[in-house]
Amino acid sequence: MQRWKLTIEYRGSSFSGWQRQEDGVSSVQQTIEEALFAFCQQDIRLHVAGRTDAGVHAAGQVAHFDLDYGDRPLDGFNLCKALNAHLVGKAVSILAAEPVSQDFHARFTAKDKLYTYKILNRQAPAALNEGLVWHIRRPLNVTAMQEGANYLLGHHDFTTFRAAECQAKSPLKTLDRLVVTAVTAEDIQIHAEARSFLHHQVRNMVGTLVLVGEGKWTPLDVKTALEAKDRARGGRTAPADGLYLIDVRY
Amino acid sequence: MQRWKLTIEYRGSSFSGWQRQEDGVSSVQQTIEEALFAFCQQDIRLHVAGRTDAGVHAAGQVAHFDLDYGDRPLDGFNLCKALNAHLVGKAVSILAAEPVSQDFHARFTAKDKLYTYKILNRQAPAALNEGLVWHIRRPLNVTAMQEGANYLLGHHDFTTFRAAECQAKSPLKTLDRLVVTAVTAEDIQIHAEARSFLHHQVRNMVGTLVLVGEGKWTPLDVKTALEAKDRARGGRTAPADGLYLIDVRY
Repeated sequence: MQRWKLTIEYRGSSFSGWQRQEDGVSSVQQTIEEALFAFCQQDIRLHVAGRTDAGVHAAGQVAHFDLDYGDRPLDGFNLCKALNAHLVGKAVSILAAEPVSQDFHARFTAKDKLYTYKILNRQAPAALNEGLVWHIRRPLNVTAMQEGANYLLGHHDFTTFRAAECQAKSPLKTLDRLVVTAVTAEDIQIHAEARSFLHHQVRNMVGTLVLVGEGKWTPLDVKTALEAKDRARGGRTAPADGLYLIDVRY
Repeated sequence: MQRWKLTIEYRGSSFSGWQRQEDGVSSVQQTIEEALFAFCQQDIRLHVAGRTDAGVHAAGQVAHFDLDYGDRPLDGFNLCKALNAHLVGKAVSILAAEPVSQDFHARFTAKDKLYTYKILNRQAPAALNEGLVWHIRRPLNVTAMQEGANYLLGHHDFTTFRAAECQAKSPLKTLDRLVVTAVTAEDIQIHAEARSFLHHQVRNMVGTLVLVGEGKWTPLDVKTALEAKDRARGGRTAPADGLYLIDVRY
């Protein structure tokens, strides 16, 4: 039995999210599990680093699975190629397949996750990047957003930024990085890094920072909201379209 | 009668190309002309800077039209907003609308056009950018590609890079810039700038430079091909997916 690690890119708008659904709605998990079945005629279960919601994209999602391939030789390059051949036109691409030890677990041994949130900040709606960004018309003050973001760094109770349906035992998390940058005047990106996040935490933090960027909140209001430990005191949940799981480190 | 200049973004994969088709296939021109009709109930004809082929994208296409709006006030901001309201979900976005003098002509007064060609250079197919890049598996040598590109700079007979159906009177063009850059290891971009191009010229130059990048041609082979003045001596036509009309200068 060999354990394999997959690094995966997908376009979230084509899926109901990562997790396999009972009602047969198209999920990323099911799509890749079907490609695995087509490759080896075995029902294989994928374990993922982070279950992304409907519409959320990935440029570096990670999943693992165990495969008994008998005595036949199999390397990562060919496994990757074979899976991609079964994923043509499905908005999922396997970037890498690597053999790993049985100690490896996509979710439990992950040390760090990096998300990027992309905002298109201009009057005109997105045509080229429709579904791949959050379109915001009002010009955002990136400096003020970064000032607000700084209050969220470190170890905190993130209840204010936690979805009602979040299943984590504790609202305590450590946020290692939250950087707001204007790549161009209209391309604003927010990078968030932590060992793990609460459900909707990145989207709720982004929704709140946008209030600061629009001038509706001061940067200090972010600190007040965090300390209130009350979801009702945070900003709106930013749409899934702009969110990308970029990297998982082990 | 006021002349208006529009700056336009569109996702080429949603259209049969710029030009209005007899058979009612969806073109960018028709889509915007219908939005203009919805806005002012007049049949307005758009004149474009460069008719892009099916699948070719634009981040800065330019078109003009004349509008008699009576004595009612109309500014660019509101015209732009009104047109975009009629273009929701249509993969076209009006970036700007500006009043211009009757001397302005989108095509005939254009001084310079900038195209960018995007290549995804990695083993795994595109999932996030499907339809927005040319996927090439073999690692490209960007330095060699630039060396080949340099032979194409300046005033030449570009017959080798001209589509059979090209309607230009002369195959003589002046290429002002042809830059090959690796934005990241897998994101290769080719920027081409000239007053005007022959039909398929950018895609045929890119197809040829990729032969150099893959090591199948030497950079000097590009010079030989150019001097042959024979389309059969050039590389293949690169797919439309990777091509973007970025900017038109006046």
